[in-house]
Amino acid sequence: MQLLIEPIVRAALLEDMGRAGDITTDAIVAEGAMTSGALRARKAGRLCGVEVAATAFRLADPAVKFETRLADGADLEPNATIATIRGSARGILTAERTALNFLCHLSGIATATNRFVRLIEGSKAKIIDTRKTTPGLRTLEKYAVRVGGGMNHRFGLDDAVLIKDNHIAFAGGIKPAIEAVRRSVGHLVKAEVEVDDLAQLRECLDLKVEVILLDNFSLERMREAVKMTAGRAILEASGRVTEENVHAIAETGVDLISSGWITHSAPALDIGLDFD
Amino acid sequence: MQLLIEPIVRAALLEDMGRAGDITTDAIVAEGAMTSGALRARKAGRLCGVEVAATAFRLADPAVKFETRLADGADLEPNATIATIRGSARGILTAERTALNFLCHLSGIATATNRFVRLIEGSKAKIIDTRKTTPGLRTLEKYAVRVGGGMNHRFGLDDAVLIKDNHIAFAGGIKPAIEAVRRSVGHLVKAEVEVDDLAQLRECLDLKVEVILLDNFSLERMREAVKMTAGRAILEASGRVTEENVHAIAETGVDLISSGWITHSAPALDIGLDFD
Amino acid sequence: MQLLIEPIVRAALLEDMGRAGDITTDAIVAEGAMTSGALRARKAGRLCGVEVAATAFRLADPAVKFETRLADGADLEPNATIATIRGSARGILTAERTALNFLCHLSGIATATNRFVRLIEGSKAKIIDTRKTTPGLRTLEKYAVRVGGGMNHRFGLDDAVLIKDNHIAFAGGIKPAIEAVRRSVGHLVKAEVEVDDLAQLRECLDLKVEVILLDNFSLERMREAVKMTAGRAILEASGRVTEENVHAIAETGVDLISSGWITHSAPALDIGLDFD
Amino acid sequence: MQLLIEPIVRAALLEDMGRAGDITTDAIVAEGAMTSGALRARKAGRLCGVEVAATAFRLADPAVKFETRLADGADLEPNATIATIRGSARGILTAERTALNFLCHLSGIATATNRFVRLIEGSKAKIIDTRKTTPGLRTLEKYAVRVGGGMNHRFGLDDAVLIKDNHIAFAGGIKPAIEAVRRSVGHLVKAEVEVDDLAQLRECLDLKVEVILLDNFSLERMREAVKMTAGRAILEASGRVTEENVHAIAETGVDLISSGWITHSAPALDIGLDFD
Amino acid sequence: MQLLIEPIVRAALLEDMGRAGDITTDAIVAEGAMTSGALRARKAGRLCGVEVAATAFRLADPAVKFETRLADGADLEPNATIATIRGSARGILTAERTALNFLCHLSGIATATNRFVRLIEGSKAKIIDTRKTTPGLRTLEKYAVRVGGGMNHRFGLDDAVLIKDNHIAFAGGIKPAIEAVRRSVGHLVKAEVEVDDLAQLRECLDLKVEVILLDNFSLERMREAVKMTAGRAILEASGRVTEENVHAIAETGVDLISSGWITHSAPALDIGLDFD
Amino acid sequence: MQLLIEPIVRAALLEDMGRAGDITTDAIVAEGAMTSGALRARKAGRLCGVEVAATAFRLADPAVKFETRLADGADLEPNATIATIRGSARGILTAERTALNFLCHLSGIATATNRFVRLIEGSKAKIIDTRKTTPGLRTLEKYAVRVGGGMNHRFGLDDAVLIKDNHIAFAGGIKPAIEAVRRSVGHLVKAEVEVDDLAQLRECLDLKVEVILLDNFSLERMREAVKMTAGRAILEASGRVTEENVHAIAETGVDLISSGWITHSAPALDIGLDFD
Repeated sequence: MQLLIEPIVRAALLEDMGRAGDITTDAIVAEGAMTSGALRARKAGRLCGVEVAATAFRLADPAVKFETRLADGADLEPNATIATIRGSARGILTAERTALNFLCHLSGIATATNRFVRLIEGSKAKIIDTRKTTPGLRTLEKYAVRVGGGMNHRFGLDDAVLIKDNHIAFAGGIKPAIEAVRRSVGHLVKAEVEVDDLAQLRECLDLKVEVILLDNFSLERMREAVKMTAGRAILEASGRVTEENVHAIAETGVDLISSGWITHSAPALDIGLDFD
Repeated sequence: MQLLIEPIVRAALLEDMGRAGDITTDAIVAEGAMTSGALRARKAGRLCGVEVAATAFRLADPAVKFETRLADGADLEPNATIATIRGSARGILTAERTALNFLCHLSGIATATNRFVRLIEGSKAKIIDTRKTTPGLRTLEKYAVRVGGGMNHRFGLDDAVLIKDNHIAFAGGIKPAIEAVRRSVGHLVKAEVEVDDLAQLRECLDLKVEVILLDNFSLERMREAVKMTAGRAILEASGRVTEENVHAIAETGVDLISSGWITHSAPALDIGLDFD
Repeated sequence: MQLLIEPIVRAALLEDMGRAGDITTDAIVAEGAMTSGALRARKAGRLCGVEVAATAFRLADPAVKFETRLADGADLEPNATIATIRGSARGILTAERTALNFLCHLSGIATATNRFVRLIEGSKAKIIDTRKTTPGLRTLEKYAVRVGGGMNHRFGLDDAVLIKDNHIAFAGGIKPAIEAVRRSVGHLVKAEVEVDDLAQLRECLDLKVEVILLDNFSLERMREAVKMTAGRAILEASGRVTEENVHAIAETGVDLISSGWITHSAPALDIGLDFD
Repeated sequence: MQLLIEPIVRAALLEDMGRAGDITTDAIVAEGAMTSGALRARKAGRLCGVEVAATAFRLADPAVKFETRLADGADLEPNATIATIRGSARGILTAERTALNFLCHLSGIATATNRFVRLIEGSKAKIIDTRKTTPGLRTLEKYAVRVGGGMNHRFGLDDAVLIKDNHIAFAGGIKPAIEAVRRSVGHLVKAEVEVDDLAQLRECLDLKVEVILLDNFSLERMREAVKMTAGRAILEASGRVTEENVHAIAETGVDLISSGWITHSAPALDIGLDFD
Repeated sequence: MQLLIEPIVRAALLEDMGRAGDITTDAIVAEGAMTSGALRARKAGRLCGVEVAATAFRLADPAVKFETRLADGADLEPNATIATIRGSARGILTAERTALNFLCHLSGIATATNRFVRLIEGSKAKIIDTRKTTPGLRTLEKYAVRVGGGMNHRFGLDDAVLIKDNHIAFAGGIKPAIEAVRRSVGHLVKAEVEVDDLAQLRECLDLKVEVILLDNFSLERMREAVKMTAGRAILEASGRVTEENVHAIAETGVDLISSGWITHSAPALDIGLDFD
Repeated sequence: MQLLIEPIVRAALLEDMGRAGDITTDAIVAEGAMTSGALRARKAGRLCGVEVAATAFRLADPAVKFETRLADGADLEPNATIATIRGSARGILTAERTALNFLCHLSGIATATNRFVRLIEGSKAKIIDTRKTTPGLRTLEKYAVRVGGGMNHRFGLDDAVLIKDNHIAFAGGIKPAIEAVRRSVGHLVKAEVEVDDLAQLRECLDLKVEVILLDNFSLERMREAVKMTAGRAILEASGRVTEENVHAIAETGVDLISSGWITHSAPALDIGLDFD
């Protein structure tokens, strides 16, 4: 992953440094000065982004000593020490905010995901994400979902097929749509179809569609869908998933519950850098 | 702004298109097919990012007709039509998610900011942001704060000075810190100092510091700070600002109330694209 | 696709122009001079890359008139006119080689693919590509395979799973390998397993592996594999596929025949630009 | 060369890794696992690209041990060991295909070039390349030509002048063309003129053109050209050079024989990575 | 600063190396050959850019030993040794010109700045730069100004406000202009107003403008401006500053004297690399 | 050239706009406001960079009307109108400084070059540049030299050979150096050798070196060199060329006089934008 992470972190540091760098630190802190500190949780949550934070510090000071105490996926208690850092004071102060921005954001997503995951424990359903991610951060945010115990929906427009209502309208029906797709995509590309009602679901099942998205189905309707499907396809429940209803959705017997909220609206987890 | 926006939007589209583009749409929708639709609010909130969304559609189809009905800063009612779009079906379907990801994210920030702004209406205080922004999106997120009625704190490490506790420790006191800064930064760079208590505040006032950040002060202490300052410096209240306490903070008489939450944790505003 | 094509073509033009541009043309041809010509096949083959070539000319002269006579997928006879061009002589001369380099390269791949496709006509097998593509050109080369009548294998390491012998060795067997994959990848990711013999094939079938790659199987062994599989999985024949043996491989009843040759070794198709 | 190589190799790795990286390897192989193996020739040929392949492995695992056994320019026997590798299993598996894609492609070009070079041994002629290279890889492909024993024609539109028939037409003759060039290019830029017949050749010689390209001359006509030139200019034979006719062309006494085939159509050389 | 410097230096090296690298050195100097030398001043001046030069050599040879003898800000005598270098001959020869181009250019700016600084010693005025910098080098050139003893004006259009005559015309006066600015910019953004005469100056003082630029004022008028201002604002003298008049300008009592000349027209300082 | 110019100008605009764009203009000038003006010379000189300046304005406002009155190469009188501009006030104000920075810098180089060119009028010598250019601007600065009436030395390390004293030392003499080069570079690459005395010059002539650089020769020695050479090679005079000695150098009969000064130290030409 390091090859994927580094250009994102480097760009973030340069965004923060602008044209003149950290003018406060450069004016005050001598070039050789050293410092040390610890990344600590301020709130409870699921940790994600330790390697990303480490990369920020390493880019600002290649000689920094970053010692990981807790790895991604750890469940943080308030005050838990995530990592200790020792190195150039200039480098650490310059990278601090960028490192924390990543760490808090990704841990926020992992924490939000994990909350949903725990709410459906015991069911066979899995929490999955969507393409409703922050522009530029899809790789990292989808990683955070996995760290939170969720699974990933497709990563982009190109790695899987998702046939929505507009596609069906353009094709003139589910059947011509799925046939057009099967003619053109490779053997390792899976296709999912979004359905609005049970009639469309039945049509998909007849066409041996592998994955079917139930768009804004009521719980009642979901149960019927599960029954009708009888294991012949993977069913994804989508639309208005909340902490309140996620358990009930899982109980209907669907395989997947997707949430855009866990990536586009998860609050950041509060993590800070305490200097020694 | 268009020169600043375009590379960010282009990168977001390419992130979503990956190596093969929109394989669903390309398989199903004919190259010349046209479509039209409208961007509509699903929830109430403050609109932000219309030009960014337009850029996404224009990059995917340079001939698209994007007609703005509501401009950034508008207060949206549910179902309000933000813009109408008409153009190549392939282009619009390919750009839809990217356009919405920006629009929902930025409107979410503007909405969150505006909620705080309204809560302190009548006071002289202003809501300001922090550097706790999403990596890669600082330009856009700080714009969204302004659209929400807030003002911007510094944009990066290089355009203003913010002396924090660590800097003070390294300098050996507030006075040497502020002197080091004054020796090295230009005449258009303002300096702000973060203080933990009233003694530090008094020291800053004696040193004629222009802007002072009250870090995690209680309401009581803030009032004392305002009194002690008596207009000789701009006072920023920082730390744990919530919808519950923001009004009370404003009442203390501080000039600025900064919130990281409005950028790092604002939930996305629900906006969708309805095809005709 | 235009958004994916343009940066590649722009980079190719800049590679050719270096620091000083087309010094021959700039010295000899006046700035306002116009010219016209036609892209013509010199040999028979399958056309691919017309839009890519057009992009090269358009980038060098935004006002160029590029009229397509034959679209990608056309079967070219020698001398067939592919497109006519009219515009600035400087722009056309500067872009000529870059446009042709793409057009000849991609048409070469489409032609090679199509030759294989024709040799197996009548069978149910399909010709597919591999990841043995030219660095930087995967998007375009895989497109050329489709234009040639082939289908695409995965586009990269991230859009599908391919478990090879080394993975099996690290996992300690096919079963733990496939289980590890199923635990970690999303519901739209397909997994293929490479097998060396019939025992491994049987194991895969028992594990309900969806796609199985028969690595360097003899024709005899392929037939046994097809029989044993009996439609329960997609079978890909791989290794040393040539014009001589491709028909016989298809006759064995495998579903897919993959060839690295069609991308890494297909000779360019001879296409030229005739000036009027 | 390392500064020129690294960005190309890094881009190729990122192209293959996409948004999620090597999902197969990451699911199956533990982070600390080590592996080792050897790059081995599967067919005979001229080796090229060892340092490029090493760069791919080093980028994926900075701690990899890559020991070169054979350097670029070595003549490979089947099974010859090119290099041994030891390092992180994840890194090596992730970089394997990218490393091999470069190595096989460049060795293919070196091998093709070298075949032509051997066919004309004993003559004074040299094999040279053209600008018919793969977009993005000109630096590496022209290096491979040199490794194969060939020499390089110009690297782009800007480092030397090549006056073709269209330039002559625009200038109104060879003389005004060459004069325009001499007025505008620097003292270290050489000019070559393409001629279609002996009359044009004579005109070039009278104008003291340093290098003359004989475009599609018959062997008979080439011999006359050599005689007429009598050493007063460098003569390049161009057009439809094959393994069958290259020796005869060299025998005519021309100085240079250029081939686009060696870069745009050379089949990849089969090289693989054998894990221990 | 290293994070800001490296991409600029890397781009400069690649600009010089083009597509084929240092063909002279690669043809003549063996790969393992070592060399050593010293960077030495040929003329007296103020040194700037040692770390930038070191970066050039390190990028070309990561194992180079670069020992700094004199740091940025040192006043060079002719023949002074700035640094010693030892490493790969290929790397050092390839990077030599790029390293020197930066070093001579930046030292030229520092030297020019310092000459002005010395001419006004004893006054309270400071020499400052402008945005008249070389495209792409603003970070480095503004650093050189500081090394020369000057201070920096704003770094770009975004980090401070400068209201010029056109802005005033568009706003309909100084007052509406300054009010528009105060409504929209953050609390850490300072505003400067350019005035043409004393009436405008008075208006600015009444509006409590913090910084005022006296555009092309005569010495006499400057003195009046200083008197009128009486310390209520920072005054910047701008326009046609030369070695001849800078002392007199400083004597008027202005706070800042800005010069575009020190960045856009400072002659390079002659520094060379002497090989041992 | 437009393809080469645009990325440089775009980067310069983004450098100036930073993260927030032109905050002064955006606060004061309404979005639809129009303005017009003229680019005018403030001093006499040779114009260069009109198309570059136009590109800056077009990027900031694609609808801008930029009418060229004087083309590159024109000799400017003070107050001469170079171009008129009409368009969005925001776009024009934002791009003004960037456009002028290019225009003044390039015209400065053209002017300096032209001054040398005029001083040697009547001689057969030509003024040429060096690789002592500003990092990132070699393409444009070498263009400015041509516009000033000079010719270009090589553009980089890769388009021509220049054998210096260190190369000769590493090779063990001029002969082995030139032979090494001839073995490895292509037929369109010229080689120049730097000599320190007449003995080396004679050796070069015996080796039929095409171009010879006389390094820091006295006028007397140059004359001897010209006599000894007798037209058998192109002679370049290099080292400490000034307005005072350039005519005398030209009189010695050398072919080329190279100056680093015209690129690294030419003062900017004063050109401004007068708003209507």
